[in-house]
Amino acid sequence: MRVGIVNVTGYAGAELARILARHPGVELTEVTGRSAAGQPLASVFPHLAPLGLTIKPELEKVDFAFSALPHVTSAEVIPGMLKDGLRVVDISGDFRLKDPAEYKQYYGHDHPAPELLKEAVFGLPELHGAEIPGANLIANPGCYPTSAILGLAPLVALSSRDFIVDSKSGISGAGRTMKLNVNHYCEVNESVMAYGLDGHRHQPEIAQELDGVLQRATGERGVDVTFIPHIVPMTRGILSACYARLQEDVSQPQLMELYREFYFGQPFVQVVDAPPQSKHTWGSNFCIIHPHARGGGRVVVISCLDNLVKGAAGQAVQNMNLMLGLRPDMGLEALPIYP
Amino acid sequence: MRVGIVNVTGYAGAELARILARHPGVELTEVTGRSAAGQPLASVFPHLAPLGLTIKPELEKVDFAFSALPHVTSAEVIPGMLKDGLRVVDISGDFRLKDPAEYKQYYGHDHPAPELLKEAVFGLPELHGAEIPGANLIANPGCYPTSAILGLAPLVALSSRDFIVDSKSGISGAGRTMKLNVNHYCEVNESVMAYGLDGHRHQPEIAQELDGVLQRATGERGVDVTFIPHIVPMTRGILSACYARLQEDVSQPQLMELYREFYFGQPFVQVVDAPPQSKHTWGSNFCIIHPHARGGGRVVVISCLDNLVKGAAGQAVQNMNLMLGLRPDMGLEALPIYP
Amino acid sequence: MRVGIVNVTGYAGAELARILARHPGVELTEVTGRSAAGQPLASVFPHLAPLGLTIKPELEKVDFAFSALPHVTSAEVIPGMLKDGLRVVDISGDFRLKDPAEYKQYYGHDHPAPELLKEAVFGLPELHGAEIPGANLIANPGCYPTSAILGLAPLVALSSRDFIVDSKSGISGAGRTMKLNVNHYCEVNESVMAYGLDGHRHQPEIAQELDGVLQRATGERGVDVTFIPHIVPMTRGILSACYARLQEDVSQPQLMELYREFYFGQPFVQVVDAPPQSKHTWGSNFCIIHPHARGGGRVVVISCLDNLVKGAAGQAVQNMNLMLGLRPDMGLEALPIYP
Amino acid sequence: MRVGIVNVTGYAGAELARILARHPGVELTEVTGRSAAGQPLASVFPHLAPLGLTIKPELEKVDFAFSALPHVTSAEVIPGMLKDGLRVVDISGDFRLKDPAEYKQYYGHDHPAPELLKEAVFGLPELHGAEIPGANLIANPGCYPTSAILGLAPLVALSSRDFIVDSKSGISGAGRTMKLNVNHYCEVNESVMAYGLDGHRHQPEIAQELDGVLQRATGERGVDVTFIPHIVPMTRGILSACYARLQEDVSQPQLMELYREFYFGQPFVQVVDAPPQSKHTWGSNFCIIHPHARGGGRVVVISCLDNLVKGAAGQAVQNMNLMLGLRPDMGLEALPIYP
Repeated sequence: MRVGIVNVTGYAGAELARILARHPGVELTEVTGRSAAGQPLASVFPHLAPLGLTIKPELEKVDFAFSALPHVTSAEVIPGMLKDGLRVVDISGDFRLKDPAEYKQYYGHDHPAPELLKEAVFGLPELHGAEIPGANLIANPGCYPTSAILGLAPLVALSSRDFIVDSKSGISGAGRTMKLNVNHYCEVNESVMAYGLDGHRHQPEIAQELDGVLQRATGERGVDVTFIPHIVPMTRGILSACYARLQEDVSQPQLMELYREFYFGQPFVQVVDAPPQSKHTWGSNFCIIHPHARGGGRVVVISCLDNLVKGAAGQAVQNMNLMLGLRPDMGLEALPIYP
Repeated sequence: MRVGIVNVTGYAGAELARILARHPGVELTEVTGRSAAGQPLASVFPHLAPLGLTIKPELEKVDFAFSALPHVTSAEVIPGMLKDGLRVVDISGDFRLKDPAEYKQYYGHDHPAPELLKEAVFGLPELHGAEIPGANLIANPGCYPTSAILGLAPLVALSSRDFIVDSKSGISGAGRTMKLNVNHYCEVNESVMAYGLDGHRHQPEIAQELDGVLQRATGERGVDVTFIPHIVPMTRGILSACYARLQEDVSQPQLMELYREFYFGQPFVQVVDAPPQSKHTWGSNFCIIHPHARGGGRVVVISCLDNLVKGAAGQAVQNMNLMLGLRPDMGLEALPIYP
Repeated sequence: MRVGIVNVTGYAGAELARILARHPGVELTEVTGRSAAGQPLASVFPHLAPLGLTIKPELEKVDFAFSALPHVTSAEVIPGMLKDGLRVVDISGDFRLKDPAEYKQYYGHDHPAPELLKEAVFGLPELHGAEIPGANLIANPGCYPTSAILGLAPLVALSSRDFIVDSKSGISGAGRTMKLNVNHYCEVNESVMAYGLDGHRHQPEIAQELDGVLQRATGERGVDVTFIPHIVPMTRGILSACYARLQEDVSQPQLMELYREFYFGQPFVQVVDAPPQSKHTWGSNFCIIHPHARGGGRVVVISCLDNLVKGAAGQAVQNMNLMLGLRPDMGLEALPIYP
Repeated sequence: MRVGIVNVTGYAGAELARILARHPGVELTEVTGRSAAGQPLASVFPHLAPLGLTIKPELEKVDFAFSALPHVTSAEVIPGMLKDGLRVVDISGDFRLKDPAEYKQYYGHDHPAPELLKEAVFGLPELHGAEIPGANLIANPGCYPTSAILGLAPLVALSSRDFIVDSKSGISGAGRTMKLNVNHYCEVNESVMAYGLDGHRHQPEIAQELDGVLQRATGERGVDVTFIPHIVPMTRGILSACYARLQEDVSQPQLMELYREFYFGQPFVQVVDAPPQSKHTWGSNFCIIHPHARGGGRVVVISCLDNLVKGAAGQAVQNMNLMLGLRPDMGLEALPIYP
């Protein structure tokens, strides 16, 4: 099976290449990138030199593709890829929100391919594992939403439906394109800041999926999510503190049991007894979750992952594995690198 | 006026020495520290070499003292200092909680000097400015509480009284004593983690002071505070995201006006229009606050400061200035160092 | 005395503003910056909000100016300023090299004002303290050269004249303008790299000044300097390891004595007994030097400073103080901030 | 083949476990650690939880062992392991120096097993690849020496034999045991410092091996190495700048050719055209080398690696592969993780 990466020149694209390079079930044969077309991949990313690939302007002969294009552009290009018979995992945010009006509100653009929104599957295997194998187009979830949805899904149906998600992300989440206030070393090092207070585009993504969980459990919809992301001075990692109020109080053992059952058999979710550090996931596809009952029905859930792996490229490969009928963890077995 | 520092060998003590060294209204003449007694201060802290001080076992001839001792020890030593006629600012947590039972619950020890709890003034000048000049014993507030209380005080009386405080702190907050999981470089670098989920001792301090604000405004008490601190990989700085629900919705301009009025004339509180970075306060005594109305009565307040200055040594000097009738900002005029 | 800063929008300009804001002998009344003209200084640098200044397109009514313009532009603008009667400290590299051919080789441009090269004084007070008070134009030294020249000057005349300078700099030295490989957080964090192997423009500056020291001592010229700069993941600070071979071996006490005598009375050079950390200088105008005799005539000198203070803005203010007959350390008394 | 790790509780031990956990040719069945015996490995290192191992007091039934014990202790324990028929790779420094007097000078202790010094092979595969397969005891090289020896070996015979090695290391090199001035976050973050000026124990190791190269090429001995290590604020990585003077000048192409030939066929040495960043090796077993001819016979070689992989655990596994007749890169195929 030959696979290709469209727009390999960002961090998600490079991370896909790193993982696929050692994947035993597929062969990474092509990578593209407009501005860098014609250059060796090694000249953009020296750590990928052992692949020996040259960046092309377009994919040519692959059977499966990952799009790491920016949003809007991705949705413009994907319909043609599907017509050519490719199956596609889209890393951009273009096919995550089911409502094109919400897409327009948060992405500032009419959706370029609204007809595909229904068939696209939201690629969070722990919630949509049954739909992924048959899909031709996967909307790979956002990094923040992956941590928040996995953190809150087990207790949505038991809760007051009013959630606060306070997330802390490393700086690679802002991409490789330079922006003074979010990735100039001197501006962000030794500092923490909140941003997106007016409404980050990952907020409706979290709400949509929690609403889906609620609806499947109770038939109702209507969660309220307050989501505040922060930038902290580290390269990789997201840790979200998710605050909920339950309708009835639970004990800590009951809460642990709830989470352990919910994620039973999931290879990449670890439910743990003590608050994790985000770096316990560095370079791996794990999402580590620690739920904590504080009494009075107040629950705080700490959920962390590597934003470029389970929050992007690793989850994309996990989706590909499911689509191709491979072991879910094929190519993703590496342990986190610590320290 | 001769001033002394008891236990100069931690970070709060060193920061006090740095500020007092250039304070035009007092003279730092003595510093103590048991294990390092007899050594030049420069051998423990090379950056303080220009002071030319030697560490003593005990204070001898000063008129005013700062205690940077650990809790419990501080409360054991301070009664004797007061009897000797010293006025004292206590950097430890010993005299912050008014209720000795709460002290025992959170500090794990009977209070060594409960008879002083009434006369000790909680040294947050923005709330207790009237009581500080006449006090002989100031309980200097904790670093997290300073950011949280200043962030929430203006809207306590208008709120549902149910608050979430999600704080992110640099690593100097954990002190100079080595602890593998909180200040070994390799364990905390490139990582973020939550801790204190079972109840951090700064939680009752925040609740006590917000309750006080509520009571002065409405005659009632009874706030509920969920406080979750996090460690982020930076040396200095705290940024708290404070979540509240108001009884009636407010517009963003109304909210800004509320905060600007509340802190009018306060030299060290800056109410700003955009979310600040914690490093905008580095090395200075400023607390920068950005309140944000999200609709539906939901308010998020971002509040940040330098944990060793406004969160410890700088606020202690501010308290001293008020006690001695000096300009409130004397010795604290330095601008933040950026980047 | 009214002073102004031309091009305040970079890090050296902002650091000048921070220092001058609290300088008791002069008043910072004007700051300029082309792209940001008309904006409040606080909108570019929130930490400078307390100054209340607005960025102007040009200086108007000042008596003394600092140019923080990029090289070439600085030398184009300064002749006019001098004609207008201003005295000027130039932070750029334009007037440091005395030989316009060398300037062309290293800066890639004909010198815009070669007639001023003779009257410009190289503003390293420890070497040229006698010439600075009478100068109208000061070429403020580069950050790397300040550390290297101060580190090696005392032993040039005793040495084999073949020097290696291996320097490590924080990232603010590369400026505020974004460049992917030198200041994008994710590209430089958790990494160290050498650069400028083909010849960094600070190399002839170091060689020129060491040659000057040699000539004044022996009448000869002809030092050989191999200079390799490195970028390390920190915001501020330079630490240089300077390697020399002496004609005759010296003991460690003899070496210390040599350095202590050479810098006797200099307020900003500390000669110390143990290898310093660069952060012992953070925010201060100190250069800390530790010379080490290894036997066989091999000497290693460790020299460190804050690249934005003694390596740029602080040294510029020190030069201004000397030009105006003020105390050399006026406005520069602040101790380093640690940790 | 069952393998075990003695003293898994430090960083080198943990990194061995991480690599061996996914090694297809051997099975990691036992790990030991005295103070933590009886605990699950996951309680010390959560990222190793998927191994499901419990820490034992002693090895029991393995065929091959890695000793990650501290020096002296390692040499006390290894003779018994060899007698029990185990083949051993020693990560400590105990068997690297061939001269027991030099060992005593640098390690401050009589060598516990001098009779084994002759049979122990210095496990740098690029120099001693022929001797490693037949060895029962491998002295795994130090992290700094690996970077320095690989950087200088190709030109020793052509040089003046007087070398300066200026190395920059991340903080994991100082181990997991807490030491205030080398691994307390606040003391080392945002700082760089030189140490070991009186003679670091890796200096004789570098000299011994370069002398060996010289002797094999020319029959002579007698290199002079000045080695100065520095700590820079990052977790992993070493970058060494190695300074040499050649007897005759070479061009840059000649120099590149010399290095490419010397390392032809070596799977883990990359000779590259531009100065590398240390993070291009993060998590991988690569050593990246960039030699640079500066004219006049002056050569600077930049050499970098991950101190815990090629500088410790990865090289140990590479040695094991050679001893067991496996592919040299088995279990070490993972690409570096970037950014």
